[in-house]
Amino acid sequence: MDIKNKYVTIKTNINGAPKESNFEIKVENVSFIIESEDVVVKNLFVSIDPYQINRMKSQSSSQGTISFATAITPGESIDSYGVGRVLFSHRPDFKKGDLVAGLLTWGEYSIVKEGSLLNKLDPIMGFPLSYHVGVLGFSGLTAYGGFFQVCKPKPGEKVFVSAASGSVGHLVGQYAKLLGCYVVGSAGSQEKVNFLKERLGFDDAFNYKQETDLKSALKRCFPQGIDVYFDNVGGRMLEAAVANMNSFGRVAVCGVISEYTNATTRAAPEMLDIIYKRITIKGFLAADFMNVYAEFLSKTVEYLKSGKLKTIEDVSLGVESIPSAFIGLFNGENIGKKIVKVADE
Amino acid sequence: MDIKNKYVTIKTNINGAPKESNFEIKVENVSFIIESEDVVVKNLFVSIDPYQINRMKSQSSSQGTISFATAITPGESIDSYGVGRVLFSHRPDFKKGDLVAGLLTWGEYSIVKEGSLLNKLDPIMGFPLSYHVGVLGFSGLTAYGGFFQVCKPKPGEKVFVSAASGSVGHLVGQYAKLLGCYVVGSAGSQEKVNFLKERLGFDDAFNYKQETDLKSALKRCFPQGIDVYFDNVGGRMLEAAVANMNSFGRVAVCGVISEYTNATTRAAPEMLDIIYKRITIKGFLAADFMNVYAEFLSKTVEYLKSGKLKTIEDVSLGVESIPSAFIGLFNGENIGKKIVKVADE
Repeated sequence: MDIKNKYVTIKTNINGAPKESNFEIKVENVSFIIESEDVVVKNLFVSIDPYQINRMKSQSSSQGTISFATAITPGESIDSYGVGRVLFSHRPDFKKGDLVAGLLTWGEYSIVKEGSLLNKLDPIMGFPLSYHVGVLGFSGLTAYGGFFQVCKPKPGEKVFVSAASGSVGHLVGQYAKLLGCYVVGSAGSQEKVNFLKERLGFDDAFNYKQETDLKSALKRCFPQGIDVYFDNVGGRMLEAAVANMNSFGRVAVCGVISEYTNATTRAAPEMLDIIYKRITIKGFLAADFMNVYAEFLSKTVEYLKSGKLKTIEDVSLGVESIPSAFIGLFNGENIGKKIVKVADE
Repeated sequence: MDIKNKYVTIKTNINGAPKESNFEIKVENVSFIIESEDVVVKNLFVSIDPYQINRMKSQSSSQGTISFATAITPGESIDSYGVGRVLFSHRPDFKKGDLVAGLLTWGEYSIVKEGSLLNKLDPIMGFPLSYHVGVLGFSGLTAYGGFFQVCKPKPGEKVFVSAASGSVGHLVGQYAKLLGCYVVGSAGSQEKVNFLKERLGFDDAFNYKQETDLKSALKRCFPQGIDVYFDNVGGRMLEAAVANMNSFGRVAVCGVISEYTNATTRAAPEMLDIIYKRITIKGFLAADFMNVYAEFLSKTVEYLKSGKLKTIEDVSLGVESIPSAFIGLFNGENIGKKIVKVADE
C-alpha cells in the first residue's frame, strides 16, 4: 500500500538558533507491507517543543555529546508527540478509525513501529482533542510531575516559574496556586505578564526583558526568598534564582531554553549559595513520572472540568506551518502550548 | 580573673588567596567575671578548614553576600572547631580539667559562651585526642553524612572524590570502599595519588595538575561513567564530572575550594546533561547530620579499631603556625586533616 506523505525535515544539523532555511517540506511516497505490525496514523495535532532543537545539533558540537537525546538525521522525518487517527493496522490492539496519542511525526502521516509509544485515546471527556497533546499529554505530565515529584512543594511556599506563559510553565504556576503557594512567573512581554496575573491568577509576574538586573527583580518579587524554582530557561535566570533562594530550596530543571541555541550561555550559579543554603538542583524528564500518570490525569481532568485550571493553546495550521511554529518558540512568540493542527478530524 | 591570650586574627578582609600578611598574632589580656556562665578552655588542638576563607571576605565582595557564613571581624578572634581542657568554669556541667570539644578559637584560650557548641569529651576510646578534631569530629561527620545521606550510594556504584587526600575526601573514599563501591580520587601531586592508591585502597587516582583535559581524565578512570561525585573543589572539575555522569547520578557539594579564592572561577555544568541524565546537585553542611551522629560515631570508631579505616593528620605546632597552616590548604600542602596543636595536654 502506498501513501503520499508531506513532512518536515532539517536540511543539515542546526547548532544555533533555528531559521526557516534550516528546514524543508518534503513529499515522499511511503510503501508498507500489509502484513507488517506497523500502524499507519493520520496525524491530527502534533506537539511543538523546544527540546527538539537539542536533537538537531551536530554530534560534533559542544552540546552534541548529549547522547541521551536521540539525534534527528537531516532529510528524515522528525518524531514528536501527537494525536491522530488510525488509517491502517493489522494489529489487534489498533483498528482503523481509532483515535491514538503517541510518538507521531511532524508530517501528515506517521508509521508507528511496534514498541513505539502509541496509546488508544478515550475521547469521552468532552475536551478538545488538542488537549491530549498539551495539558493532558506530556506538557501536563511534565508540569505535574516536575512540580510535585521534583520540587516537593508545601502549601505557603514561595514558587518561581520561568517561561511561565509557556506550555509547561503556565500549568506549573496554576498547580502551585492550587496547592496554596505564592507564585511569581517571568515572561518576555507585558502581554504575557498581564496574562499570567489576570488570566491565570499568578500572584505576580515580571517581564525579564525589562529588567536590568534579574537578581534585583527576584528580590523585589520575593522579599522572603524563593523556596522552589521551576526552571525552564537556565542561564542568568537560574543564577539569579539561586542567589535569592532560601535554605533548603529546590530547583527543578525542566528546560534551559536560553542555553539551547547558544552553547556559551551557561548557568554558573554561586556554589557557596548552593552549599550554605543546602540547595538541590535536579534535572528530570516527563518519562520518569509514569508512576503518577493516573493521578496526574484524574486530578488534571477534575481541575479542568471545575474551571480551577485553565490551559492555553497556540495553534498553527498545516504541516507547512511547523518550521515557523518551532522557530517561534525561541523568539517567545507563543503563549501557552504550541501545537500544529495538521488535519481536521 | 585575667589570662594572657595569644590568638590569630585577620588584619583586614581577604577577598583572594590568603597571604601571611593578611594575618597577625595578637596578645590580649582577658578579664572575665568569676560568676559568669562562660567556660574558659585551654585549647589543645584546633581545626584548620578551607571554609573559613568565606568568613573572611568583605561583605561587599561578590561572594560576600553569603550571609549564612558568619563573618569574621578583623582584629577579633576566629572561632573554629577544636579540642581543649577546661581551665575555669562555674557551670555544673563543666569542671576544671574536663576535656571538651566544641567551638573554640584560633588561639591559646577560648572563652566559650553559654549556648555555644561545647561537649565533654570521653577520651576512653584510646585514640589520639586530635582524632576528635578530625575523623571523629566535623570532618568525619561531613564525610559520613555527605556520602551516605546526600549521595545515597549503593554497593557497586562508581564514586568520584575530588580533593581526595584532604580532610574530608580521604574519609569519603574509604567509606565508599567499605560500602563496596568503585572509587577514584583526584589530588594535586603524585605523592598524594600514590597515597590514595597504596595507603587508602582507592581503586584509582589521578593528579589533576598533570591532566590537560579533566573530562578525558574522568572518562579514562570511569569507562562506565560516574554514579556519585563527592565534590570538594567545584569549578572545572564539577563540569567534567557532570559530563561523565551516568543517568540518575548524584553530586554532593561539600566544598568548592577552587572557587573560594577566585570569584571568577565558577562551575557552569552543561545543563542539558543535568536534564537528560536527571542529575541531582545538592549542597550540604555537616550540621544537618546531627540525626546520624551516633551512628557515624559508632561505625567510625569500629572501623578505626578494626583497621578498616585509616585517618591521616597533618599537624603543625603552636598558635604562630596557624596562618601558614591555613594558607597551605589553598596551596595543596596538606595530606589528610590539617590540625594545629596549640599546647600539650
